[in-house]
Amino acid sequence: MRFDLDLTEAQQQLLGRIAPLDGERVSLLSAWGRIISEEITAEHDVPLYRQSAVDGFAVSEEAPVGVRFLLRETAITPESEIGTGESYSVATGGLVPLNTRMVVPCENARIEGSYIAFTKEIKSGRNIKSAGEDLQRGTTLASPGTRVDPGLVSAMAAFGYGEVSVYRCPRVGVISLAKGAVPWHDTPGPDQFRDSNGPLLASLVNSDGGEVIAVDLAGDNSPDLKKRALELLDSVDLLIVTGGTHGGEYDEARNLLEEIGAEFLFWGVKIRPGGHPAAALFGSRIIICLSGNPGACMVGYQMLVSPAMRALQGLPPLYPSIKARCVNSFAKEGGPRRLVRANAVVHEDGWRVTVLPGQKSSMMNSSIDCNAFIDLPAGHPPVKADSEVKVILLNPEYSGIYHSHMQQSTGGDLGNE
Amino acid sequence: MRFDLDLTEAQQQLLGRIAPLDGERVSLLSAWGRIISEEITAEHDVPLYRQSAVDGFAVSEEAPVGVRFLLRETAITPESEIGTGESYSVATGGLVPLNTRMVVPCENARIEGSYIAFTKEIKSGRNIKSAGEDLQRGTTLASPGTRVDPGLVSAMAAFGYGEVSVYRCPRVGVISLAKGAVPWHDTPGPDQFRDSNGPLLASLVNSDGGEVIAVDLAGDNSPDLKKRALELLDSVDLLIVTGGTHGGEYDEARNLLEEIGAEFLFWGVKIRPGGHPAAALFGSRIIICLSGNPGACMVGYQMLVSPAMRALQGLPPLYPSIKARCVNSFAKEGGPRRLVRANAVVHEDGWRVTVLPGQKSSMMNSSIDCNAFIDLPAGHPPVKADSEVKVILLNPEYSGIYHSHMQQSTGGDLGNE
Repeated sequence: MRFDLDLTEAQQQLLGRIAPLDGERVSLLSAWGRIISEEITAEHDVPLYRQSAVDGFAVSEEAPVGVRFLLRETAITPESEIGTGESYSVATGGLVPLNTRMVVPCENARIEGSYIAFTKEIKSGRNIKSAGEDLQRGTTLASPGTRVDPGLVSAMAAFGYGEVSVYRCPRVGVISLAKGAVPWHDTPGPDQFRDSNGPLLASLVNSDGGEVIAVDLAGDNSPDLKKRALELLDSVDLLIVTGGTHGGEYDEARNLLEEIGAEFLFWGVKIRPGGHPAAALFGSRIIICLSGNPGACMVGYQMLVSPAMRALQGLPPLYPSIKARCVNSFAKEGGPRRLVRANAVVHEDGWRVTVLPGQKSSMMNSSIDCNAFIDLPAGHPPVKADSEVKVILLNPEYSGIYHSHMQQSTGGDLGNE
Repeated sequence: MRFDLDLTEAQQQLLGRIAPLDGERVSLLSAWGRIISEEITAEHDVPLYRQSAVDGFAVSEEAPVGVRFLLRETAITPESEIGTGESYSVATGGLVPLNTRMVVPCENARIEGSYIAFTKEIKSGRNIKSAGEDLQRGTTLASPGTRVDPGLVSAMAAFGYGEVSVYRCPRVGVISLAKGAVPWHDTPGPDQFRDSNGPLLASLVNSDGGEVIAVDLAGDNSPDLKKRALELLDSVDLLIVTGGTHGGEYDEARNLLEEIGAEFLFWGVKIRPGGHPAAALFGSRIIICLSGNPGACMVGYQMLVSPAMRALQGLPPLYPSIKARCVNSFAKEGGPRRLVRANAVVHEDGWRVTVLPGQKSSMMNSSIDCNAFIDLPAGHPPVKADSEVKVILLNPEYSGIYHSHMQQSTGGDLGNE
């Protein structure tokens, strides 16, 4: 086991040991927001045949305004052909006869009995979509690790996908070792407090696409702890242990991990707040120990658990950094690398970030509206109002890092509308 | 009814007629991501009493290293007091006796039988959290229109909230008037195509927090159309009609709205693609007509339906704009205001945006990975690679516009950790 790593090294140690979970098949309509675990390829050209881009009349020859065409009533098949002086009525997206040269839109035509006359000259090739002009057979639409967005759903629908393979949602258990915590819906006694970390972690896990199996408050229930931890590890992919990471005489969390025979990866990370997180493995299960202090717990989750959650789902694990103008000031200085809970807002002229009130590790106030951390290096000076700072964005959808399709496309037809 | 409005005016016409839906109470653990419809206030101080910030020993006086204190074994109550030369063992977050002057952390103390000796001098006031130092009774935590984030969940848990009032999820129906469309899971005949707009719109509605009640393909089923539309309007908050907005002889969508007696707000918006969307009201129900062309349908959804969905949930309706460097070029020029489907990525030095391939209104390719529109004014020149463009970000969480708590906080204690 290694002690008191730099954060970057701790993340590497942890992420180096995580592989994505298995895939599972879900119906297309419930795939939105999930992470693709298979290559998605265009199975045929879209459109499959040449088709009309408008409601109108298909003809096989250019003609001046006023020339009449016989309106043919037979249904169009992939083998239909248009005779000279004839015209087929076609719908937007509908098949056009083989030798169609152009489609005259309805608003540029006048019906006269069983004939049609054009009121505007239309050039050869107009209003016809060629086969495959939207999506060509064999084009990669998405690769494993792509989040399913509405556009991808619609493309898969066009190929009739009933189901799609996505990475399984990580199952997460939480054991709190904090003494005196009662379930949040109970009334605490004078020497007790409501467990706000359980609901915090449940929401964070949900926002990272995971499912919380259990939130156990084991702080005053130590004899059964080992048994309960082993039970939970039997049914989860990731176990979060909060509290008991810096107890003085001994660390309850470390003791628990030693008792069950977990393989320690590291103990302690040089960050503030929450400098005593730890990571371990139990077979294929991941165990991450976080401070029981609400602010430190939140920072530890975002910097260690969230990257693990993302890696389990085949996503790029780390959050992007940007530069932002800090609206207010932050007086603290020195110490280890510091992650200041903050709210980042994008404006037309760039990002602005605000230090949230209540930065002690014990405080939860600064977790409300927290969508970013100001990332201050070890030994930093105070942050002055209006200065530029480095900011880690916590919501991964900020970053647009899921653009596998775009990167693979070779430019293609940027087209007209 | 007004025709061919500018987009901004069309949005104003529509949004001016939309009020948020009713609130409903949901359990705290399922509130994450929903939009608060009530004022959330700190119901008491957090912490409620003075408490210890560490596991350690509470004493009522400063003392040099080595001085021994008698370890008291009685439980601490809100009335407990420490005698001279005495010490109470306290846990992180636990109550401290009334006259506690400081808490000595475990790691700075040594137990000697029923006595304790300190191995490091601790100054008066250290390791004690004052009542209300995190959240003061009466502080506003969130106002109506705030999206519930994990930090807010944890703060509400600290006050024992069992349920929270959130705006109801909008119920949405979709009627497609496109001729030849078959359900996406069916195999189309030669003059038919799979309905990809239904799954597209269902995913978009889901991503905006709504629920799709029905996706009806009515294109070849006109006689029952009016009846079916009225049925749907009976159970939805918003009805999307796709296709039939620009048919030539007559617009099926407009015809349908006239038949049911809807109150038209506007018909036609000066944008490309999809210049023929419309909006109407039917009592308190909203009806928005979109092009059946996949690309135009997507643009129309994002610029009209999505703002309506957000307004129904009490959110600021319009997306933010930013400036970005356009990685590639876009050759088209002139015409009305144009919304180019694009992928925006934030980098440390700012935003980069890529024009996605397949920009015709009939194409769906450019909807994959589309998280932004390049917003080109009427009569614009072509976009050169590497030039700066205005970009509308489509994912509202990009914008950090939900920061009511932060705006209301008056600075407060930025604290130590």
